[in-house]
Amino acid sequence: MRAAVFRGPRDIEVADRPDPNIKHPTDAVVRVVLACVCGSDLWYYRGETPHPVGSIGHEFIGIVEEVGADMTGIAIGDLVIAPFIYSDGTCPHCRNGSTIACVAGGTFGDGQIDGGQGEAVRVPLAGSTLVRVPGSGHSDQMLRSLLTLSDVMSTGHHAAVSAGVSKGDVVAVVGDGAVGLSAVLASKRLGAGRIIALSRNPARQEVARAFGATDIVAERGEQANEAVLELTGGIGVDAALECVGTGQSMATAFAVARPGSTVGVVGVPHGEVPFSETFFRNVGWRGGPAPARIYIPELLDDVLDGAIDPGRVFDYETDLEGIADAYAAMDERRAIKSLVRVGSL
Amino acid sequence: MRAAVFRGPRDIEVADRPDPNIKHPTDAVVRVVLACVCGSDLWYYRGETPHPVGSIGHEFIGIVEEVGADMTGIAIGDLVIAPFIYSDGTCPHCRNGSTIACVAGGTFGDGQIDGGQGEAVRVPLAGSTLVRVPGSGHSDQMLRSLLTLSDVMSTGHHAAVSAGVSKGDVVAVVGDGAVGLSAVLASKRLGAGRIIALSRNPARQEVARAFGATDIVAERGEQANEAVLELTGGIGVDAALECVGTGQSMATAFAVARPGSTVGVVGVPHGEVPFSETFFRNVGWRGGPAPARIYIPELLDDVLDGAIDPGRVFDYETDLEGIADAYAAMDERRAIKSLVRVGSL
Repeated sequence: MRAAVFRGPRDIEVADRPDPNIKHPTDAVVRVVLACVCGSDLWYYRGETPHPVGSIGHEFIGIVEEVGADMTGIAIGDLVIAPFIYSDGTCPHCRNGSTIACVAGGTFGDGQIDGGQGEAVRVPLAGSTLVRVPGSGHSDQMLRSLLTLSDVMSTGHHAAVSAGVSKGDVVAVVGDGAVGLSAVLASKRLGAGRIIALSRNPARQEVARAFGATDIVAERGEQANEAVLELTGGIGVDAALECVGTGQSMATAFAVARPGSTVGVVGVPHGEVPFSETFFRNVGWRGGPAPARIYIPELLDDVLDGAIDPGRVFDYETDLEGIADAYAAMDERRAIKSLVRVGSL
Repeated sequence: MRAAVFRGPRDIEVADRPDPNIKHPTDAVVRVVLACVCGSDLWYYRGETPHPVGSIGHEFIGIVEEVGADMTGIAIGDLVIAPFIYSDGTCPHCRNGSTIACVAGGTFGDGQIDGGQGEAVRVPLAGSTLVRVPGSGHSDQMLRSLLTLSDVMSTGHHAAVSAGVSKGDVVAVVGDGAVGLSAVLASKRLGAGRIIALSRNPARQEVARAFGATDIVAERGEQANEAVLELTGGIGVDAALECVGTGQSMATAFAVARPGSTVGVVGVPHGEVPFSETFFRNVGWRGGPAPARIYIPELLDDVLDGAIDPGRVFDYETDLEGIADAYAAMDERRAIKSLVRVGSL
């Protein structure tokens, strides 16, 4: 099959990789319909986080083509969403809601395990990992929204859940990438009363507003902190959502969080938390990789109902052979998030 | 009046300070009955955190002797508990439960404001700060327990609340100082099913067991982490409570916290949180200085009922003139916590 292969920083190409087959009775083989590039893939692309040579990509939806002998829950022909980490659903961490720490789990596209950016994927622990999408004949826009549940929308939701966003809250979202925009949508869905989006890019501001942002702050650094504090009468926000992971973005999220609040952190951290300062203000943090498998069912209901339309984060698309530019477009901020059309329903 | 004066590291003496008087209509003057030395006072004593020359001590109970013209809630003759931070009760942070961030607030014994380690204290914002103790003729043991609500028991409770301790949880408490022991008691009170206390000191282990600890881990560092993980079948604890503030104690708290859990942090941080590692395990943290004024009423009920007996943390006592040894005893770990008898009811 054809699949993206990570060769090294700024070197992603499409090459032949072995066709996936059932290896274990709990495996399934999924033919990929839609895939995409994650903001976290860019850390590898830019050489800021190491990645092994080999398969890459961990977000995809597709059609089940083959299942192992010991399969329940999914069947050949099902349209399925793959959370970015596979999990057994039965270990103590999975039962506690932390599928990302599953003792038998792992991530797609780690160099060895097939990546989502390819024609097909062997999915380990498929019965407990994949989420079946009911119905048929879904529109292209619906498929795009379903794809976001694989990671980006679940991650935005995780930021909001980790920060404890609840009805009427004032929220600040630091980061206008696809995760940040998804965090705006997730906050709106959870009933936030006011959502301040930090963005200096008009196209992203527009998506943020469509997703529920009530205020836009275009400043950065100290000026951004002051602007958010001014908007909140000097109090700070009930929930700050950190969706970037740089030192500056973390500093801003912690600075605008009101005393006693919890920062929801989902940007992969490439900076340090200003610990002792936040301690004295009783500002904590929660977050990390989203337990997407736990969140997908409830988010899926809202996507299918049309209550949320997270697929709007895709503003660039290509096919599998165009994968290199899909990365470059995000790296150069030509795209919020790149969709990769791999197959059809 | 006589009061403790901080002159510099390892230099605390009792000296004459001006008698407190009402300066503002919301002030009260409290004659101190019992005071004590806080673990955080030791950071100043040891020269690890700067402290201005002057008043010191922020934990006390006493009798109201004088009130300003604009006083509600307390009256002359009341036995009162002073939370370690005074607060107005009406600012946005106070109304949100963060009295420690009160816009008009401050701490006792900061060099200027009278400290608890003295014969009397002018209490600013006294009507919203002090908590009146109902009843009369309280026993000495009851008074000792009431004194702990000023800081140490409220702080232990804050660790448990910040970590979200709830019924049946497995809890690890890192630190066997008075705060750690109070955190054991607070966890028990909140319904923890199993409480692992980290302590290598037999006297402290005994108090920990009396307060509800079910397991003792005497190891430190990596060995402590392994011991706690072994006790929990490799899973880690539902709630880790960090009650020390050193790099090693924080590392242990974060290492034994199970994925998805929140570390309750109340030890004043003198080290860094191992951020990116905990991020990938979805282990967050909450905490900081305890909003004691918020917690005192509910804890007070349980103290008066005899449901909890936090005064057991005091295993050394002296009078005001003996204040220097009260510090030295804690510094040298001859005492868990030093009680200072200043006056009588």
